[in-house]
Amino acid sequence: MDDDVPLILTLDDSGSSASAPLDDLDREELPNENGGSYDVINDASSPAAGDCCAQQSSARHNWEMNYQEAAIYLQEGENNDKFFTHPKNAKALAAYLFAHNHLFYLMELSTALLLLLLSLCEAPAVPMLRLGIFVHATLELFALIVVVFELSMKMRWLGFQTFIRHKRTMVKTCVLFVQFIEAIVVLVRQTSHVRITRALRCIFLVDCRYCGAVRRNLRQIFQSLPPFIDILLLLLFFMVIFAILGFYLFSPNHSDPYFNTLENSLVNLFVLLTTSNFPDVMMPSYARNPWSCVFFIVYLSIELYFIMNLLLAVVFDTFNDIEKRKFKSLLLHKRTAIQHAYRLLITKQRPSGISFKHFEGLLRFYKPRMCARERYLTFKALNQSNTPLVSLKDFYNFYEVVGLKWKAKRNREHWFDDLPRTAFLIFKGINILVKSRVFQYTMYTVVAVNGIWILVETFMLQGGNFFSRNVPWSYIVFLTIYGVELLLKTTGLGPVEYLSSGWNLFDFSVTLFAFLGLMALAFNMEPFYFIVVLRPLQLLRLFKLKKRYRNVLDTMFELFPRMASLGLTLLIFYYCFAIVGMEFFAGVVYPNCCNTSTVADSYRWVNHTVGNKTVVEEGYYYLNNFDNILNSFVTLFELTVVNDWYIIMEGVTSQTTHWSRLYFMIFYIVTMVVMTIIVAFILDAFVFRMNYTRKNQDSEEDNGIVLEKEISKEEVVGIIELYKRSSSATETAQLQKIVLQMDKYGQMSTLFLGRRSRTKSDLSMKMYEEEIQEWYEEHSRKEESPTPLQEPASASNSSLKPLSRRQRSQTVI
Amino acid sequence: MDDDVPLILTLDDSGSSASAPLDDLDREELPNENGGSYDVINDASSPAAGDCCAQQSSARHNWEMNYQEAAIYLQEGENNDKFFTHPKNAKALAAYLFAHNHLFYLMELSTALLLLLLSLCEAPAVPMLRLGIFVHATLELFALIVVVFELSMKMRWLGFQTFIRHKRTMVKTCVLFVQFIEAIVVLVRQTSHVRITRALRCIFLVDCRYCGAVRRNLRQIFQSLPPFIDILLLLLFFMVIFAILGFYLFSPNHSDPYFNTLENSLVNLFVLLTTSNFPDVMMPSYARNPWSCVFFIVYLSIELYFIMNLLLAVVFDTFNDIEKRKFKSLLLHKRTAIQHAYRLLITKQRPSGISFKHFEGLLRFYKPRMCARERYLTFKALNQSNTPLVSLKDFYNFYEVVGLKWKAKRNREHWFDDLPRTAFLIFKGINILVKSRVFQYTMYTVVAVNGIWILVETFMLQGGNFFSRNVPWSYIVFLTIYGVELLLKTTGLGPVEYLSSGWNLFDFSVTLFAFLGLMALAFNMEPFYFIVVLRPLQLLRLFKLKKRYRNVLDTMFELFPRMASLGLTLLIFYYCFAIVGMEFFAGVVYPNCCNTSTVADSYRWVNHTVGNKTVVEEGYYYLNNFDNILNSFVTLFELTVVNDWYIIMEGVTSQTTHWSRLYFMIFYIVTMVVMTIIVAFILDAFVFRMNYTRKNQDSEEDNGIVLEKEISKEEVVGIIELYKRSSSATETAQLQKIVLQMDKYGQMSTLFLGRRSRTKSDLSMKMYEEEIQEWYEEHSRKEESPTPLQEPASASNSSLKPLSRRQRSQTVI
Repeated sequence: MDDDVPLILTLDDSGSSASAPLDDLDREELPNENGGSYDVINDASSPAAGDCCAQQSSARHNWEMNYQEAAIYLQEGENNDKFFTHPKNAKALAAYLFAHNHLFYLMELSTALLLLLLSLCEAPAVPMLRLGIFVHATLELFALIVVVFELSMKMRWLGFQTFIRHKRTMVKTCVLFVQFIEAIVVLVRQTSHVRITRALRCIFLVDCRYCGAVRRNLRQIFQSLPPFIDILLLLLFFMVIFAILGFYLFSPNHSDPYFNTLENSLVNLFVLLTTSNFPDVMMPSYARNPWSCVFFIVYLSIELYFIMNLLLAVVFDTFNDIEKRKFKSLLLHKRTAIQHAYRLLITKQRPSGISFKHFEGLLRFYKPRMCARERYLTFKALNQSNTPLVSLKDFYNFYEVVGLKWKAKRNREHWFDDLPRTAFLIFKGINILVKSRVFQYTMYTVVAVNGIWILVETFMLQGGNFFSRNVPWSYIVFLTIYGVELLLKTTGLGPVEYLSSGWNLFDFSVTLFAFLGLMALAFNMEPFYFIVVLRPLQLLRLFKLKKRYRNVLDTMFELFPRMASLGLTLLIFYYCFAIVGMEFFAGVVYPNCCNTSTVADSYRWVNHTVGNKTVVEEGYYYLNNFDNILNSFVTLFELTVVNDWYIIMEGVTSQTTHWSRLYFMIFYIVTMVVMTIIVAFILDAFVFRMNYTRKNQDSEEDNGIVLEKEISKEEVVGIIELYKRSSSATETAQLQKIVLQMDKYGQMSTLFLGRRSRTKSDLSMKMYEEEIQEWYEEHSRKEESPTPLQEPASASNSSLKPLSRRQRSQTVI
Repeated sequence: MDDDVPLILTLDDSGSSASAPLDDLDREELPNENGGSYDVINDASSPAAGDCCAQQSSARHNWEMNYQEAAIYLQEGENNDKFFTHPKNAKALAAYLFAHNHLFYLMELSTALLLLLLSLCEAPAVPMLRLGIFVHATLELFALIVVVFELSMKMRWLGFQTFIRHKRTMVKTCVLFVQFIEAIVVLVRQTSHVRITRALRCIFLVDCRYCGAVRRNLRQIFQSLPPFIDILLLLLFFMVIFAILGFYLFSPNHSDPYFNTLENSLVNLFVLLTTSNFPDVMMPSYARNPWSCVFFIVYLSIELYFIMNLLLAVVFDTFNDIEKRKFKSLLLHKRTAIQHAYRLLITKQRPSGISFKHFEGLLRFYKPRMCARERYLTFKALNQSNTPLVSLKDFYNFYEVVGLKWKAKRNREHWFDDLPRTAFLIFKGINILVKSRVFQYTMYTVVAVNGIWILVETFMLQGGNFFSRNVPWSYIVFLTIYGVELLLKTTGLGPVEYLSSGWNLFDFSVTLFAFLGLMALAFNMEPFYFIVVLRPLQLLRLFKLKKRYRNVLDTMFELFPRMASLGLTLLIFYYCFAIVGMEFFAGVVYPNCCNTSTVADSYRWVNHTVGNKTVVEEGYYYLNNFDNILNSFVTLFELTVVNDWYIIMEGVTSQTTHWSRLYFMIFYIVTMVVMTIIVAFILDAFVFRMNYTRKNQDSEEDNGIVLEKEISKEEVVGIIELYKRSSSATETAQLQKIVLQMDKYGQMSTLFLGRRSRTKSDLSMKMYEEEIQEWYEEHSRKEESPTPLQEPASASNSSLKPLSRRQRSQTVI
């Protein structure tokens, strides 16, 4: 085992003697051929060091480095990082490792968040959070310095050349530079100037490792833009035509304020596109001539009902296409990563596969938290053949298998199997009861009755003093029923099995909340009263009844991460617009501000006395302002919902210039893009999922991915031997526990179950099953005949490599 | 040729002697085996009539009947009429023929339209069109009597039993009965009572032959309903939960009118779902506690942005699925129809195919307008083999081929090839110029300049007296340029080729309109001034430039018929709601009607004098009423657009009961269904089309379906012989002209081009290419082993048939 030499290094030592059986790999022209060949290693692995012990330790050192680099490749494959950012030497590796762990990521994230949150305290600040200029500017400087540190680590890892070439990092550097200067200026002048550049702060968040999904969304949005813009132009074109027409038709009517100038005509037709001013904009001309409604009906039919839907169709189609291409490229990228890693793990002696020893070494770097048992199970799950080696073909499944959570298949069916006979019978009875249909439907009935009860109760309550201090008896009754149900289910199924189902978890938390609500009512805790209103949530349980709802809710949960990232993307756009809005429109809108505009009513605040009563006439729209970032967010949400957004626009416009409309219109278009993409995403996801279920109608219920593997006692003993040699005591002990347990039950082997939830990628794998093989073939064909045009980065990279390798081998020999 | 006896009749005469080579047909178990076997025929074709001449004429008579029935089968296949409505005897056939021609269809349509249009003149009538009760009731009675006549014809054709079983017809009969009674009651009482049943009048329109597309749409809408309703329930469920929550949270705030009762809370959240009251509904609570916006943001995110899109996804998915299933069933139905027709056209002597003589006979009934040349070409196009017979396999392409328009391929490349040398050169030059890219792009530039000119001109004009009596010179200049272009193109390409392109047709008509506009301006014709504003339409020509726009516009034209039918479907819903609205809400809304409601402002009409100026404060919303059917339609359109619809709802509600809200809410849901389906349709059509173009990227530009066939002189002479015998002089003359022309140019054959535009069905054929073969196989398998459960209608039909055939053969022999 000591002559177990990595293949890649041996290539340098003994020429191509071992490369013959590796045709398939050599053919593939791995772009980064100096993998596992950091300077340090090369110095140490010099065969000139004749001493056997030194050689052995250097071999181990080599292996450690190989493991690490393989793990890095696999991580890059998983995260879709391009290989040209792969660390190239030991210094870079150190920086890479420093910059690639959760602590660093957290630092990145918290600095970015700090910078974003600063807008709460700066100039038009939220009143409660206002900070002195000195304080927030210092905070900002501090955060920026941290960013500088992060960037310098990145530069160290990437090297100057790659750093320069990496677009996103360069943009970040520029923004950083500008921010730095501005922060210093603020600190020196001690006043805030107009700082629209603050809108660019989002880039720090977008660049975070944890915000990869947001980056992907942004890329997808930008990729969907060209067709979107084409249709948008069509939309605007018709708008201009209709604006001219409308101006000619309606401007002779002097009581019509909407079409008196071409600009008004355009603006009002833009607003009409959002339907926001609809019957109003038509009314003056309609009152004069009923047939003028034809103009508006035709306009809305063309623009709103046809072209806007066309927009959705085009975006949906592009989105669909991009999703597929993205899936394809990620799949091929992962495949390449696996090939790279594989090359680093095979030995000169056994080039046809990876032995467990090396696989275990890889996992130690790739997933340090994994225990020895899981490592072995992963290895076994990968290994399809009966040989002790994992071939490249098997290794391709690495990403699918490594995510599995392994658990020993319990020998006991129920948690109470070991209890004495009487207890067993009782629990068995409860178990049967709980699993029976009658019990389920009884509970549904109870929930339905509860729902009707709540409705009726609320209806009877109206106007009365409904936060009485008495706890209503119905509440207690229903809660008792739910409590009993919870108790029965927990005892019948065992707490672990009970909580492993998402629906049970939901029941549990709702009942818990309801109980807390009861406590709140009982002890008169005012602030808890909102828990009372969570009661209707129980009714959600009814949706378990129908398959379509289950499907919808399952899909919802599956989509949740993606939806959240889309939401975050929207928030980032919001942030940019909020900053710009605050810089331009802070303090512009206030009660009775817009008495000269057409929307004066909405901003009115009159406090007049009629008789001896004070009547307050409030338009409330002055609340929709840009006075601080929270207000801005609410205002922007209102603009997103689109209804009556022109009131906000006209209010602001009347207090500033009419160029302000540009801000609102651009915001409308941007949110339209994002919203259309969100709609396209939901559409795509659901249609995809429904097609999937239609394709697999006969297959069993969807329980995620499950794999079964059996381990015999001898195998465990063998691994223990292996670990003993590498002297890792904790892992040996853990494994020995398994042996003991086997002995206890007198088994010769234990069955383990690997389980993980199904991801979109799994679904796509199944959907594109046939195409995937084609992609692979096409991919390997391309790799066979690499054209320099297709991969300029790797090509320029490899042009550097042969040189460095020659240099190295010269110093070595 | 005289012993040319139809196969079907011979089956009765001489047993199954001829059926041996027809294995493939017999296997297929045609459901309607008594085809071509009307009593008349059977009587006439009795072999007992020994006289040869009588036999011959009876054989011809037989053939005529067979042709007719085959044509009927093919028509039924094309129109997707079920075969159980196939006429079963000679009397039925007469009625069938009477009820299946355009005159009858037109009568149907005009009666239906008359009945619908009556609502213009009835009780809450359009002021200008008001008719006396006696007049419109008489008109109605007249129309209803016509409908009775139509129905009786249908009964005669279908037979009483089928008539009873035909659901749509039965509903129609019931509605007719009710309408009759009501019309008589109106006539007797001489006053209109509440006649909500008038809303059912649409059924007469829906049942029209010409409204088949509307029927299909309605069916599709009803088929999409179940999943739609599921998601709608989810929507309403969340609405109720939030209503309860909102009531608890916001009713303590007495300045909040939106949540003071549970009913208000529900209604306002329903309106919020449409975003129609958005920032307003939030404002009172937002003013009190800024965090209350979370409630509204969460509500809108769940309901509007998630569940509403889910609704679209579900409908889109269902729609997609239904479209495919519909295409499949229509395809198989057509196939069965072709099999039926084929059986009627083959002879005892030559059972392996249809000869031209019989094919020609079929076409005489199926497409009476076709000339002899086209019939022969269609036959040739169908005939893939070299035999003179069309086999069943070839005959399956009948529907694809019969729609082709045949034209002799011109020997001349240009229309001016025959002109003298000088003229030829001039025209050739123009032709080259017109086809050059430079010319095209020059014209685009001109159009662009014109566009900018119009914009600038309009912008400069504002407020001025812009309908000056002087014709602006720019107008003349541009028009001259367009005129010259038109002239050049017509002369260079020849008028026929010029007008064969849709875009040129568009150019032509726009230029013509512009010219008419100029005339109108020059002669001061006021009413024509709207033509002036059509000028910007020229700009549409710019969209020829980009491929995506061409695609979009092409798809738009392809979709137009379907869109129109969807629009008509929507109008039918409008009609129903308009009638109901008029019956309940006519005259309810008027200026200053709703001073007690929350929307009083919108209905205000105040005419007060400030100083010596009269200021009119108009809310205009009283114009959105149900006072007559036209107003109702406009109001319903406003409700469809959804913005501010609650103002109309609240206005009406404040004048009637709060149950009126039900009307508006139901209308909202119905239009939501229809609109979602329209969106799904547009999405589906475009995505389908884009997938299609992506699939056929390398194929040539889309020019519709083109087929080329060559006819030699001998063939034409042969056909002339055939026609001479059947003594149809006009057709013989027509064919002789072709021979003459061939002689003139000294050709031995002429090339003909068959052309038709591509339909959705063609696209589907290409898209589902692989699946279609499966369907066919599955279909023929099913026909082999017919299970009574799958096709109850045809099964119950066929149980009747053997009997009738036996009866017949008994009477014959």
